Amino acid sequence: MASITFITGGARSGKSSFAQRLAEAQSGKPVYLATARIWDEDFAQRVKRHQDDRDQRWQTVEEEKNLSKHDFGGQTVLLDCITLWLTNYFHDCGYQLEEALEAAKAEWTQFAEQEMNLIVVSNELGMGVHPENEMARKFADLQGWMNQFVAAQADTVYLMVSGIPVKIK
Amino acid sequence: MASITFITGGARSGKSSFAQRLAEAQSGKPVYLATARIWDEDFAQRVKRHQDDRDQRWQTVEEEKNLSKHDFGGQTVLLDCITLWLTNYFHDCGYQLEEALEAAKAEWTQFAEQEMNLIVVSNELGMGVHPENEMARKFADLQGWMNQFVAAQADTVYLMVSGIPVKIK
Amino acid sequence: MASITFITGGARSGKSSFAQRLAEAQSGKPVYLATARIWDEDFAQRVKRHQDDRDQRWQTVEEEKNLSKHDFGGQTVLLDCITLWLTNYFHDCGYQLEEALEAAKAEWTQFAEQEMNLIVVSNELGMGVHPENEMARKFADLQGWMNQFVAAQADTVYLMVSGIPVKIK
Repeated sequence: MASITFITGGARSGKSSFAQRLAEAQSGKPVYLATARIWDEDFAQRVKRHQDDRDQRWQTVEEEKNLSKHDFGGQTVLLDCITLWLTNYFHDCGYQLEEALEAAKAEWTQFAEQEMNLIVVSNELGMGVHPENEMARKFADLQGWMNQFVAAQADTVYLMVSGIPVKIK
Repeated sequence: MASITFITGGARSGKSSFAQRLAEAQSGKPVYLATARIWDEDFAQRVKRHQDDRDQRWQTVEEEKNLSKHDFGGQTVLLDCITLWLTNYFHDCGYQLEEALEAAKAEWTQFAEQEMNLIVVSNELGMGVHPENEMARKFADLQGWMNQFVAAQADTVYLMVSGIPVKIK
Repeated sequence: MASITFITGGARSGKSSFAQRLAEAQSGKPVYLATARIWDEDFAQRVKRHQDDRDQRWQTVEEEKNLSKHDFGGQTVLLDCITLWLTNYFHDCGYQLEEALEAAKAEWTQFAEQEMNLIVVSNELGMGVHPENEMARKFADLQGWMNQFVAAQADTVYLMVSGIPVKIK
């Protein structure tokens, strides 16, 4: 089983920076597991910029969905992030909430069976007014349920607030 | 006066599950005080599903607004949730913020005078971008002010984050 | 350098009330540094109402942008709030995110060089579903980055939840 550190928080709360510092402190050769699907050129450039931010100690693995097909045994892996990974499931399941949740949980369970030091970044999406857009509401539900699922398995959980890591488990 | 445990958090943060576990740990015969107004068939089915989730130890009382008219003396009561209860006041006051807040506070004060072990579930709605929709903004204000009012009276307050209860009072 | 207490939280979470009580406990003659730009008559009345809430111990300074041009040496200053101040930069920069962030950081750095006891109120905007409106998304980014910038310099940071101050640094 993976040892899991779960880092959640709002947009621009410093989640990724904190997660990277944590991974670098725990390993001399961390793996960056990028889950973004490249939707357009803007996005490609943003991913490139983030990649340039990380120094040569990092190895990057790009994987939109099938996390478990890679062998991370014994490594420190930073999964950034659950939200983009879930977006890909949600999209490919035709925006069916239950189906996407079931598929993502099954994949996650297989992935987390590996012996590794896993640092996971996610997003808090549920503390604002409930969105009028039905698909946004469904995605927020999907994210919330997945966060509960992963946080329950985690050894350590942080909530990021204005760049401050608050240890809550 | 009621002894109050206030549980707040985002959508899908595990508030109701945690509140139910808490109530079951504190009483062999807890009361589920349901405040949902049944707006449509979908909603009726969701309420029915939640009711089936609770086992035979639970007694259910449905009350959209007048909490104080029931006698809960000496019992453990799970009020789920303040948000739906406030929605009913907001609607019936023609979406007048001050009027709804005043009426809800008055009813709450009478209700909370009873000697009971009260567990209250609410929602955090204010940590997203302020909604463009004026009525949504007003409701978020109403919810925020009522949360402050109830949390100030509570002996214990939890913020739920990704299923993790964070004790903040 | 200023000694900084940073208070963040959602809308209607009791940030300003807590900040005022804190300032009054720390000084017999606190300064209220109001950053609101008066956009319309409604807003003017709201500002007036808040001003009437503060008693005669308070001195009020109104400053939409150039915080550093005032001399607060040795005083206890309540800056309420960063969000309105940033809104003015965002507006005057023609809604250019990077430009507004750079200008606000430069002004902040000069302001915070003064020896004073500074209490700062801000807003958490990032824990809801990401807004569809592009300008709202940009502003949430601006707010999030500025929150990280100021919180990193702060000696003490509070997250307000339902009126409860949670000390997180």
